[in-house]
Amino acid sequence: MAEMVHVAVDAMGGDNAPGEVVKGAVEAVNADNKVKVFLVGRENVIKEELQKYTYNAQQLEVVHAEEVIETGEPPVMAIRKKKDSSIVKAMYLVKEGKCDALVSAGSTGAVLVGGQVIVGRIKGVERPPLAPVIPNINGVSLLLDCGANVDARPSQLLQFAKMGSVYMESVIGIRNPRVGLVNIGVEEEKGNALTKETYPLLQNCPEINFIGNVEAREIPYGGADVLVCEAFVGNVVLKTLEGISSALIGKIKAGMMSTARSKMGALLVKPALKQTLKGFSTEEYGGAPLLGLNGLVVKTHGSSKAIEIRNSILQCIAFKEQKINQKIKEQVVLEN
Amino acid sequence: MAEMVHVAVDAMGGDNAPGEVVKGAVEAVNADNKVKVFLVGRENVIKEELQKYTYNAQQLEVVHAEEVIETGEPPVMAIRKKKDSSIVKAMYLVKEGKCDALVSAGSTGAVLVGGQVIVGRIKGVERPPLAPVIPNINGVSLLLDCGANVDARPSQLLQFAKMGSVYMESVIGIRNPRVGLVNIGVEEEKGNALTKETYPLLQNCPEINFIGNVEAREIPYGGADVLVCEAFVGNVVLKTLEGISSALIGKIKAGMMSTARSKMGALLVKPALKQTLKGFSTEEYGGAPLLGLNGLVVKTHGSSKAIEIRNSILQCIAFKEQKINQKIKEQVVLEN
Repeated sequence: MAEMVHVAVDAMGGDNAPGEVVKGAVEAVNADNKVKVFLVGRENVIKEELQKYTYNAQQLEVVHAEEVIETGEPPVMAIRKKKDSSIVKAMYLVKEGKCDALVSAGSTGAVLVGGQVIVGRIKGVERPPLAPVIPNINGVSLLLDCGANVDARPSQLLQFAKMGSVYMESVIGIRNPRVGLVNIGVEEEKGNALTKETYPLLQNCPEINFIGNVEAREIPYGGADVLVCEAFVGNVVLKTLEGISSALIGKIKAGMMSTARSKMGALLVKPALKQTLKGFSTEEYGGAPLLGLNGLVVKTHGSSKAIEIRNSILQCIAFKEQKINQKIKEQVVLEN
Repeated sequence: MAEMVHVAVDAMGGDNAPGEVVKGAVEAVNADNKVKVFLVGRENVIKEELQKYTYNAQQLEVVHAEEVIETGEPPVMAIRKKKDSSIVKAMYLVKEGKCDALVSAGSTGAVLVGGQVIVGRIKGVERPPLAPVIPNINGVSLLLDCGANVDARPSQLLQFAKMGSVYMESVIGIRNPRVGLVNIGVEEEKGNALTKETYPLLQNCPEINFIGNVEAREIPYGGADVLVCEAFVGNVVLKTLEGISSALIGKIKAGMMSTARSKMGALLVKPALKQTLKGFSTEEYGGAPLLGLNGLVVKTHGSSKAIEIRNSILQCIAFKEQKINQKIKEQVVLEN
């Protein structure tokens, strides 16, 4: 029998905690008997939620944590002071080897800081990138780094490319993923000091399938499977995508509701539209991993519902079974 | 009577040149008798196009230029070598004072280089930003810099903020425009070295209405009227917006055409949708000015149709009448 995958889940993190988080955890254990979830947070609240569901009690354990780190708190201070918070306690479960992975929809800053400070980096990994899966019209791409550490060095971007390739191939299942450097033009000499220095490093790296610079315009068309960039740029791309998608869809909905005629039409197009736009959602891919740590740390959207929590937990199984960290140690660090 | 505004138009630039460019020029002179257009390019081709239209011959002149700078050419070399190209000749018309402004849908690189090298910067302006107007759900914002010069200094971003404010107020007509610094978080201490150093400069500048950091997610919601950033970031925001908008709209159209039922619905929603999405187009605002030059240089989309050319030409009238360059000299340079 395969080894169980132990996942610590921050039951108090996110806009819909603990209700949706607990529900997602139950759905995950009911979906796969190889996973055991440790729900970390206020025991009485979590247990109250759990009473609503049926599940195999062997696969679900509650770990009490009194405190909660709020989204607005300065992360470094919060991680240091709130030792009894759900995020910190979940991080320690990974650090101490009781869990293989951690899933949190809570404060991004606290997850990033805690991941680095408590769980810790794999020796040789310069910087652990936050790597969300983003939708494109043909599927998905991995965009990294979208974390909080800006002003990266070329050698760090090279590691991002390698770690991203391992993840895309082994977890998302895209063979020989195309790696693109996010840039403001396709020619090699285009860009800023960072991209110009990074380009030859990527080009001369035999372990990745580098296809050159990718302009931001090509990202929604699936211009590359692994999109490499510095965190400021990644963050701007990610948030521009999120903002304009929701603004545009809002505008279209308003347009459809603006006249009697269009309202009638809306009823007719809705099912087909819903089906098409489903492809533009990433919830089935779970959250964004923070790659290169001694364990897996997954950050899901603050607005995550049960389905995203469930899929983020299940994604940890592939991460462990595919021995991602082993591969990162072998392919990213040693070859550096 | 008001002074005429002389606009040099690169008749050979863009995907739809010379047909749509000539048509747009004719529409501009027919729309406003204060403007005179100098169509620069191959005389015989332009004259052939002009025969299709009726217009006041006093307002339209053809200036022959034998060569054309193609989009793919390295811009610095092209500007240096192709002295008899439409872009270079149009630039000289501005430099020599025969024209107040120039409009081109041609090579962005050549327009940026030519603007700086031939037309030249206003004394004291450190770097001329390319400042496109971008749509948001409530109106438009100015995003600058989107040019080709990356790795800007904080003092340059301060100038962008001032020039952008002058332009938004005097040409687009937004009073006391809100200036936002594009960043990865709203708190003052967020961001990279550049944004952290720029923040206090903007905050302590009494001539602008600085509202703080703006996350990319807020851009499509009109989070600020003037969005200040370094060119790499501006370019990434602009192209992400363009890419995802066209990808999403393509996806929605495909969804509407996917079933018999949805096709029927599409017919009903189309007029209302068209009306709503019109607000998401910027063609009525003309092209992107390159601010801070001795004259106005406007870059319009390579795919510009007559309407965008027309509006780009008409936008030069407001630029001259509002004495933008005078204001830049007084408010941006002297106060530096």
